[in-house]
Amino acid sequence: MTQRVRIQNFAVSRDGIGAGREQSLERPFGHVDPMDLHGWALATAHWPGRTDPGGTRGLEDYLTRDFSRNIGAEIMGRHKFGPQRGPWTDQEWTGWWGAEPPFHTPVFVLTHHPRPSFSLGETTFHFLDASCQEALAQAREAADGKDVRIGGGVTTLRAFLEADLVDEMHVAIAPLELGEGLRLWERPEELTDRFHLEQVAAPSGITHCFFWRR
Amino acid sequence: MTQRVRIQNFAVSRDGIGAGREQSLERPFGHVDPMDLHGWALATAHWPGRTDPGGTRGLEDYLTRDFSRNIGAEIMGRHKFGPQRGPWTDQEWTGWWGAEPPFHTPVFVLTHHPRPSFSLGETTFHFLDASCQEALAQAREAADGKDVRIGGGVTTLRAFLEADLVDEMHVAIAPLELGEGLRLWERPEELTDRFHLEQVAAPSGITHCFFWRR
Repeated sequence: MTQRVRIQNFAVSRDGIGAGREQSLERPFGHVDPMDLHGWALATAHWPGRTDPGGTRGLEDYLTRDFSRNIGAEIMGRHKFGPQRGPWTDQEWTGWWGAEPPFHTPVFVLTHHPRPSFSLGETTFHFLDASCQEALAQAREAADGKDVRIGGGVTTLRAFLEADLVDEMHVAIAPLELGEGLRLWERPEELTDRFHLEQVAAPSGITHCFFWRR
Repeated sequence: MTQRVRIQNFAVSRDGIGAGREQSLERPFGHVDPMDLHGWALATAHWPGRTDPGGTRGLEDYLTRDFSRNIGAEIMGRHKFGPQRGPWTDQEWTGWWGAEPPFHTPVFVLTHHPRPSFSLGETTFHFLDASCQEALAQAREAADGKDVRIGGGVTTLRAFLEADLVDEMHVAIAPLELGEGLRLWERPEELTDRFHLEQVAAPSGITHCFFWRR
């Protein structure tokens, strides 16, 4: 089985915004309400953070339960890891996810300010000041034959797409316009020179875009 | 994790027909062209029978790659297993699937004419003259905590639905009318007294129906 580079369950507004301005500890998505973008995923039975036995089991449950399938490593940007900017003033911050992050694999955090690796639950975080290509080489090796997830945020996704390192991608388009913030694209069709694109409207109001290489 | 009873990737026409009349060795679906019902699944990258590296990776690939996820046993009717009727004249027939059937678990074949169990590749076929409840009790135990798939055909699905033993179900509705044959339902809404129903139109022309218990 070929090792693939995948983007999964990333969510943007109709105008392509994936995160708001002014990220803070209290507001990981800045001025954007994360429920507007991610509410569809939190409603499913297999949302990784779910603790009760409820949840929907339609199309969108296939998408959330695919999150871990054959993933051996994740690469994320520093802003997905935390709200800090510049050099670390301390190393108390261990991410947004509490004692058991949902990754359960090595995670490579791209940052100009590396710090020592650490493990939390089944996840180990490494910090790299590296190009997309260099980070991917390390993640591929750590993934041990499994796929590598590019986890976001917007800036990291754009960098990997511009470097043409992505094999498949699922993006959920939420039915609202945000006007400003970090923008993944003007419209999904921008990528159809390199990718097949399938768009599916879910009863939740979300349009799911599935891309895979031509 | 609760053990669930699941129907997956079952396909019917717009008028509810899942298999044709006059099943034979040459025509497992009788007068129905199986590509009309199942072509969407065969096109995907993760179709279990695929031998080349191609295939689509959109919505429908999520559905075919979910086929084995957390399944520990399957129950099928005798007409899914083969075209014979009545007592076995010999036991040469080992199913339609060649030397490596796609199940990789115990499979329980419901029949009034049991024969000895046998293994083929990673699949073991058992033959039971039993009620749905009795067969499910055996399959649950064999599944060792994993889910049980009800694999078809139409008659077997109807029996398990009538006995109210199904927890979730995915049925693909193909855009054609067949007029006659084995009918799963008049329309999917028949089941909404007991199930949530989500309907999603795929670019392939298939409408995917996802059911889960209320």
